[in-house]
Amino acid sequence: MIKFIRPAFLLVTAVFAQPSFVQSSFQKDSTFIKKIFDEALTNGKPYEWLRILSTDIGGRLSGSEGAAKAVSYTEKVMKEENFDRVFLQPVKVPHWVRGKAETAFIFVNDKKISVPIAALGGSVATPVEGIQAEVIEVQNFLELRALGKEKVAGKIVFFNRPMDPTKLNTFDAYAGAVDQRGNGATEAAKLGAVGAIVRSMTTRLDDFPHTGGMRYGVGVPLIPTAAISTNGAELLSKSLRENPKTQFYFQQNCETLPMADSHNVIGEMKGGTHASEIIVVGGHLDSWDLGQGAHDDGSGCVQAIEALRLLKKLGYTPKRTLRAVMFMNEENGLRGGITYADSASAKKEMHLAAIESDRGGFTPLGFGIVGTAEQKTRLISWQPLFSPYGLHELGKGGGGADIGPLGQQGAVLLGLIPDSQRYFDYHHAASDTFEAISKRELEMGAASMAAMIYLIDTYGF
Amino acid sequence: MIKFIRPAFLLVTAVFAQPSFVQSSFQKDSTFIKKIFDEALTNGKPYEWLRILSTDIGGRLSGSEGAAKAVSYTEKVMKEENFDRVFLQPVKVPHWVRGKAETAFIFVNDKKISVPIAALGGSVATPVEGIQAEVIEVQNFLELRALGKEKVAGKIVFFNRPMDPTKLNTFDAYAGAVDQRGNGATEAAKLGAVGAIVRSMTTRLDDFPHTGGMRYGVGVPLIPTAAISTNGAELLSKSLRENPKTQFYFQQNCETLPMADSHNVIGEMKGGTHASEIIVVGGHLDSWDLGQGAHDDGSGCVQAIEALRLLKKLGYTPKRTLRAVMFMNEENGLRGGITYADSASAKKEMHLAAIESDRGGFTPLGFGIVGTAEQKTRLISWQPLFSPYGLHELGKGGGGADIGPLGQQGAVLLGLIPDSQRYFDYHHAASDTFEAISKRELEMGAASMAAMIYLIDTYGF
Repeated sequence: MIKFIRPAFLLVTAVFAQPSFVQSSFQKDSTFIKKIFDEALTNGKPYEWLRILSTDIGGRLSGSEGAAKAVSYTEKVMKEENFDRVFLQPVKVPHWVRGKAETAFIFVNDKKISVPIAALGGSVATPVEGIQAEVIEVQNFLELRALGKEKVAGKIVFFNRPMDPTKLNTFDAYAGAVDQRGNGATEAAKLGAVGAIVRSMTTRLDDFPHTGGMRYGVGVPLIPTAAISTNGAELLSKSLRENPKTQFYFQQNCETLPMADSHNVIGEMKGGTHASEIIVVGGHLDSWDLGQGAHDDGSGCVQAIEALRLLKKLGYTPKRTLRAVMFMNEENGLRGGITYADSASAKKEMHLAAIESDRGGFTPLGFGIVGTAEQKTRLISWQPLFSPYGLHELGKGGGGADIGPLGQQGAVLLGLIPDSQRYFDYHHAASDTFEAISKRELEMGAASMAAMIYLIDTYGF
Repeated sequence: MIKFIRPAFLLVTAVFAQPSFVQSSFQKDSTFIKKIFDEALTNGKPYEWLRILSTDIGGRLSGSEGAAKAVSYTEKVMKEENFDRVFLQPVKVPHWVRGKAETAFIFVNDKKISVPIAALGGSVATPVEGIQAEVIEVQNFLELRALGKEKVAGKIVFFNRPMDPTKLNTFDAYAGAVDQRGNGATEAAKLGAVGAIVRSMTTRLDDFPHTGGMRYGVGVPLIPTAAISTNGAELLSKSLRENPKTQFYFQQNCETLPMADSHNVIGEMKGGTHASEIIVVGGHLDSWDLGQGAHDDGSGCVQAIEALRLLKKLGYTPKRTLRAVMFMNEENGLRGGITYADSASAKKEMHLAAIESDRGGFTPLGFGIVGTAEQKTRLISWQPLFSPYGLHELGKGGGGADIGPLGQQGAVLLGLIPDSQRYFDYHHAASDTFEAISKRELEMGAASMAAMIYLIDTYGF
């Protein structure tokens, strides 16, 4: 009978069995990783950088003035940190603008009740006078299709399937609901609907509409679509139960402008013996316009810069070339990630690994991976080095949207996994502000990424 | 060479080797625990209870009107939940009152700068006109004693050792700094100081003074003592570096009144086959007066009630008697915990286990334990059942202050361990409000405690 069995003990045993990972290197590595966390938690800079990015600059949707300021600001920060090379990489980005604030009302039993909505990114405007129509509430596309054109034509379709609160990882709940936001307008338009209203992607009940990207399918009419706050959705649903003739009115002025010029921002620490191999650490610099993009994804950007600063500050001389990359346009086009990977391919750059933080600046719990079984095993073998810092989820989940295209070139992809419980309280909403950031949690994420870079640079992958 | 080794897999193997824990019971247990979390995250009630406790009732220092209201309110809640028995247990509590708001100034180079302070709980008042004196800044008691009476007498001692930000568990950082708050005034008074000012117990730099308990040593003069906000502490330290003759002024009106009558609030689900064995789950109902006591420890109280509600809602029939206990007076006397244990002893009640939540309503990460090696092994054997919910820290850390006295009667003590990164942003300060609570995180803590009760009730300990 096995007693006093402890996972850490067993893993250390397993790790020591690997020739590259003898006790002396374990000591050296754990000592260096401790230094990384100590420096991050004592003299960390990302919180102040994020304050400026969030409160001084604010929302940074691709093509906006905020996005341009964020490019200049992060370029300046990395130059001030004396990275070996800091440069901008031109990226053509979609340019969608919200226009003036949306208005929406529920008309029920002679009452006109204002509810908070926000046009979804990519949506067309309503006519200037707005749209008013009866409402069909559905939970999913199957239910919608079963209703058929007869019942849907001329109406506003209301997609009201909530994120499943029982999913412990809120990203799983998001994945199970976000088809309504991405494709709801298209599915509704196929049946002749005149508009689509989507319940906001959050498990909270509050008054914040959560925007986000949507796409129109080919060959269907472009009908306007917006997110409604969860309280608004509850009210609309209740009104419809009480009176199926309830009407909804909304007016929005959003517009898609010609493609705009923007940039990825890249800071580099040159490598030594393996300089031709590149390790990327990054986040995305653009954000939705409603909030300040503090968690999504200002956090990831400042953590990436901080990860390199930490290594530099500790006098670490990388074997490989390290790059902090602020990707532009993750939210509505992924043009930054695609452009970066295209450029890498054209220049025959060899990317060993790419690490992304794009799940908020919360307490880090581990790293997801997209790689081979051997690479996953190697990641898990580092558990004893990570566990003192609470990083125990290794290998569950994937990388990140921006670094995805690099995976097709053979890079191992790693995604920082923070605690997910609060992320969708803020995601794509006006509540995504600097006040929602914990300094220590942000710093621990940056240190976790620096530790990961150190291990990959030291041992390869 | 061991490959693809995973802790969960190994532990499951270990667990299956135990006769009491065969696969069928694992399936049954994991299914029931899933139901607990599903109910908590779908229909959870603790958030609304905590809203009332925090925003409608607010601060609940022992002896205050808020504490009395909290007793009535939690009694009402448990009666509404139809617990088998709900009763009040009389407790005599210390009754300290802050009086009107404190004032403090730094006098340096003809400038008078206001800084935020808060009298420490148990402190005496200053004279009505306040105290003004030169300041001696020290990092610890050794440094203070080395200065001696000559340099300290007639001065205000300023204890300015920060919480160590590099401690990953912020409770370790707190433990390493809180002697200044608890005993600073006594140590300063021994050397003839006229007052003691203590840097607030937080790693943040902000304008909130964090109060907390202090005690005077026997036979030393009772000098007034207060916490200063960390920004205030930084400013005072800077002023002293620039001008060692910097003076500090403070005025406070706090007072210790005669002992007051209060209560523990207890809700019970009667046991079946082992009804004489009791399992307690609790938090403390009193809080400091500056904030709303949302994290400290309104969270623990509503989580304890919710833990029993969840089991009841799922139709669980306990073998043992389950009690949700709202302990009074943890903050400045522990009279509730002592009274409860004294009563248990007098009535010859047998407490099998006691579980406390008093580390904030954050994402739960595991349970600490005070028990035998065998009990710790048993706790760890439940890892496979807990790990789907992120509960991976089993057996690190202890129980809780209120349940401590029950440990002397042989009860196993368990402390819920939530993520600690944000706790001291709010602890004992005006920032400890309902707005700082995450609904999901709170609910997950309650579900974790319900799962623990279920396992203890099912398997003993």
